[in-house]
Amino acid sequence: MSNILKGIGASDGIAIEKVYSLEEPDLSFKKKTIEEGELGSELENFKNSFNQSKVEVTKIRNHAEEVVGPEHAAIFDAHLLVLDDPEFLGPIETAINGLKSAPQALVETRDQFVTIFESMDNEYMQERAADIKDVSKRVLAHMLGKELPNPANISEPVVIVAEDLTPSDTAQLDKKFVKGFVTNIGGRTSHSAIMSRSLEIPAVVGTKNVTEEAVIGETIIVDGTTGDVIIHPSEDEILAYREKEKEVLAEKEELLKLVDSKTETNDGVHVELAANIGTPEDVEGAVRHGAEGVGLFRTEFLYMGRNELPTEDEQYESYKAVLEGMDGKPVVVRTIDIGGDKELPYLDLPKEMNPFLGYRAIRMALENQDLFRTQLRALLRSSVHGNLKIMFPMIATLEEFNEAKALLLEEKENLKSEGIEVKDDIEVGIMVEIPSTAVLADQFAKEVDFFSIGTNDLIQYTMAADRMNEKVSYLYQPYHPALLRLIQNVIQASHNEGKWTGMCGEMAGDTHAVPLLLGLGLDEFSMSGTSILKARRQISELNKADMEQLASAALKAKNTEDVLKLVKEFTER
Amino acid sequence: MSNILKGIGASDGIAIEKVYSLEEPDLSFKKKTIEEGELGSELENFKNSFNQSKVEVTKIRNHAEEVVGPEHAAIFDAHLLVLDDPEFLGPIETAINGLKSAPQALVETRDQFVTIFESMDNEYMQERAADIKDVSKRVLAHMLGKELPNPANISEPVVIVAEDLTPSDTAQLDKKFVKGFVTNIGGRTSHSAIMSRSLEIPAVVGTKNVTEEAVIGETIIVDGTTGDVIIHPSEDEILAYREKEKEVLAEKEELLKLVDSKTETNDGVHVELAANIGTPEDVEGAVRHGAEGVGLFRTEFLYMGRNELPTEDEQYESYKAVLEGMDGKPVVVRTIDIGGDKELPYLDLPKEMNPFLGYRAIRMALENQDLFRTQLRALLRSSVHGNLKIMFPMIATLEEFNEAKALLLEEKENLKSEGIEVKDDIEVGIMVEIPSTAVLADQFAKEVDFFSIGTNDLIQYTMAADRMNEKVSYLYQPYHPALLRLIQNVIQASHNEGKWTGMCGEMAGDTHAVPLLLGLGLDEFSMSGTSILKARRQISELNKADMEQLASAALKAKNTEDVLKLVKEFTER
Repeated sequence: MSNILKGIGASDGIAIEKVYSLEEPDLSFKKKTIEEGELGSELENFKNSFNQSKVEVTKIRNHAEEVVGPEHAAIFDAHLLVLDDPEFLGPIETAINGLKSAPQALVETRDQFVTIFESMDNEYMQERAADIKDVSKRVLAHMLGKELPNPANISEPVVIVAEDLTPSDTAQLDKKFVKGFVTNIGGRTSHSAIMSRSLEIPAVVGTKNVTEEAVIGETIIVDGTTGDVIIHPSEDEILAYREKEKEVLAEKEELLKLVDSKTETNDGVHVELAANIGTPEDVEGAVRHGAEGVGLFRTEFLYMGRNELPTEDEQYESYKAVLEGMDGKPVVVRTIDIGGDKELPYLDLPKEMNPFLGYRAIRMALENQDLFRTQLRALLRSSVHGNLKIMFPMIATLEEFNEAKALLLEEKENLKSEGIEVKDDIEVGIMVEIPSTAVLADQFAKEVDFFSIGTNDLIQYTMAADRMNEKVSYLYQPYHPALLRLIQNVIQASHNEGKWTGMCGEMAGDTHAVPLLLGLGLDEFSMSGTSILKARRQISELNKADMEQLASAALKAKNTEDVLKLVKEFTER
Repeated sequence: MSNILKGIGASDGIAIEKVYSLEEPDLSFKKKTIEEGELGSELENFKNSFNQSKVEVTKIRNHAEEVVGPEHAAIFDAHLLVLDDPEFLGPIETAINGLKSAPQALVETRDQFVTIFESMDNEYMQERAADIKDVSKRVLAHMLGKELPNPANISEPVVIVAEDLTPSDTAQLDKKFVKGFVTNIGGRTSHSAIMSRSLEIPAVVGTKNVTEEAVIGETIIVDGTTGDVIIHPSEDEILAYREKEKEVLAEKEELLKLVDSKTETNDGVHVELAANIGTPEDVEGAVRHGAEGVGLFRTEFLYMGRNELPTEDEQYESYKAVLEGMDGKPVVVRTIDIGGDKELPYLDLPKEMNPFLGYRAIRMALENQDLFRTQLRALLRSSVHGNLKIMFPMIATLEEFNEAKALLLEEKENLKSEGIEVKDDIEVGIMVEIPSTAVLADQFAKEVDFFSIGTNDLIQYTMAADRMNEKVSYLYQPYHPALLRLIQNVIQASHNEGKWTGMCGEMAGDTHAVPLLLGLGLDEFSMSGTSILKARRQISELNKADMEQLASAALKAKNTEDVLKLVKEFTER
């Protein structure tokens, strides 16, 4: 009899394949002391196991960089650091010299480090503890002559079932064979869930016990849209889901017809749907999903997963690749947004009590002018290859914008006097993600060429609630009327000065938010590539004039609940 | 020849007295191992020194509690914990048993702990490191038979000169004899500066080298208003400053005449000047400085520096004392605002990545209903003793306010059914310190009885800048037009519904802000008691109609600089 597990739909789509388990081998061993005579071989086992692990992790790292982008490869650089860290290897070697077996020495040292790091009650240190555990597991497997499950070895279509997927696992998934996955733990924003969406693999997370229920080699059905997972499906169920799979694919086909359409409401108003991208490799997906531009090109990938700052030329090549890839369509590039929770080992950024309210993005860039000028020069040089727009993040005051813009103009003059060509009509705008800027948008609108609202941060500052903190996540309310009022103020201010406003936060692609944003007059919606076609279809079914009425009612609502009621009322009538 | 040092004026007033140095004795010692035979006396030295230190710290703690309030005593509870901590004492005893001298064993253990805590790069842990250093110094002095300078022993008028004042030092100052102090380090918001203002002792901090320049026993002049410190003053200088001192005292006398006056602009508009207080002991100062009410009674002192929650009766007695002390004048009591950066050892609050955007104040109270209901019951019971108003902190949504108010009404009904008298006209309001609430003030104004704007937090959320973080402190801009617009929105919204708005952040007593706030229509200004009479005089010299023009110009300004220019222009003409 079939058995339905309920989980959290993490990535849309249906998968019907054989179960493949990522269950780990038994890594237990007997505690024993070794003889003097065994010391040599034990030390050799220790060194070989570390070396083999280094080879494997390097492979995984490079595969990750290629398949999912350099940002995701950074974690393996951290792993490689552990594998080379004398402060970690030293105590292990000492313990072996004290006649402990290699596995024993490793596990004791690992536990000491993990205890210390975990006791620090600080997210960064706890991640270091997780790194040490992940790495030690691999080394221990080698010491015991066991093999860790290797997703890279899968060579037939499967659905992976696991407690959770580690970054090492997800980085090795091959879309050709891995048709879906299901985990016991995790939520919509857990690492594995985010990766599943970025790889476009149907996935359900947080099922609690799929590893107990699923049988290796048997067929399993994964519905990443509803979060349903069907174990031991009946023939009828398989047929029904094959039908559903067809419908999903048919809908995908249907949506794909919209790839080259304009985005227009049913009363003929055009808005622009753009893609958020993280690396030049993402351009292909953006184009495939019908993006009319890039609304946010995050440039942090250039700075991460490496040991020194990227050169001007390296940056130039990346910007050029994106501009050429988008073939004349607008590309909004955000200047460096490092600091806060994003750290770079080679920049000595201060540890902060409240990193989200700290030294990051433009605040850091204006003080590190060499780094910033290099990026601005690379951007200016790339401008001849397409339709470049430059955007500064975390602007809180007009002075910051003026200072950043002055540096840009200085570098433009410098390049020109060096005989290097730079376009003259590059638009320069800002992210609106700090309440002060949203409130003072009328003043900013006189100076900037465009706004792009970063809702992820704007919401957390407006509500004074860290979006990563579970204890206050109930306050992360994208439809709260206070937020809608700030958004309206920004859009109105830009229109009054003949400028435009985009949005590049997660909200821009949200089905409930699209009608509101349309009504508020948003000009450009930038979202993950995979959301674009759905948004295009949704917008084509909406009436701009009606949505304006919806927006005006929502601005007068008293809370999120009332806003959502209004959205339902206005879109379902 | 005299010599003028420039420092930062931390607390107003003039002091002309002999220099008293808080320089520490030489605590160095020879590193040596001890003989077996000395072990007994060394262990005894170790135990005695810890015991003597405990006696001293307990004395300092109690003195601090009495003189400057329980909030400031909490740090000594932390010190006492260290003095009793087996994890700290254990390794010291072990080292002595290993034939290290007691001082040697202490210093090595101290250094190990300090290294670990400081390496954690986390403010809380670094404070623990500071605690261990402070405590170890005291213990070490005892071990070496040396005496630490003891401010409590001063028995003639002096000016204290020191590198910095530790909390232990400031807690022992006796205003009768300590007429002023000067330090090498610190800024306007350093611990010693804040204490000097609260004790009303003239003080200059951050002189860099006063300890090198000043000569013990010689006369020194401290001008806490300008930040000037005069070493080796000439007779003429002494005479001139005695004159200035007289003027300052005369001005104080002059101001004191305003104690019983109403606060009125020169065109006859009344506003209310209230005091911020932290404990019932502060009521006396508030009354002495002519407060027309208490605009903010912080109730955290009830919860701090202790090992368990305060009972309903304890709280009731405190609220009653304040209400009776204010003799029918309004008293706004803020419900518990713990969490974030304020921790309680006996409440198991989570460590957070961004505590200022975290689980604190009303967010914590609504989840810990027992604790919250106890406070609400104590407040309701106290209402019969004066003019009580209840205020909820950190309200971000109407739902939070409604939930808190519902609990209050429930407890009111409970008390009534128990036959306990409760006033029926208690006003219930909220702090406006989160941007969402300032933006949505019109909706809140329909539900609450009053607003009190908490600028310290409102500024940091509006500008997305932690006010404690030096790297971004330039963004902590009280006169920024975006902030003024939010303030105006709140005041307007309250007036439209016939309600009133106060302000209890540091801004309310700021000379530059008062004209702006008056023009924006603020009804109640709540500040530290010592600022009230100056504000009363300043307001009596201002014209409300002119200030309204100033405010309306400031709302259209583009940055802080322009706002300050306008204030100057409008108040100096």
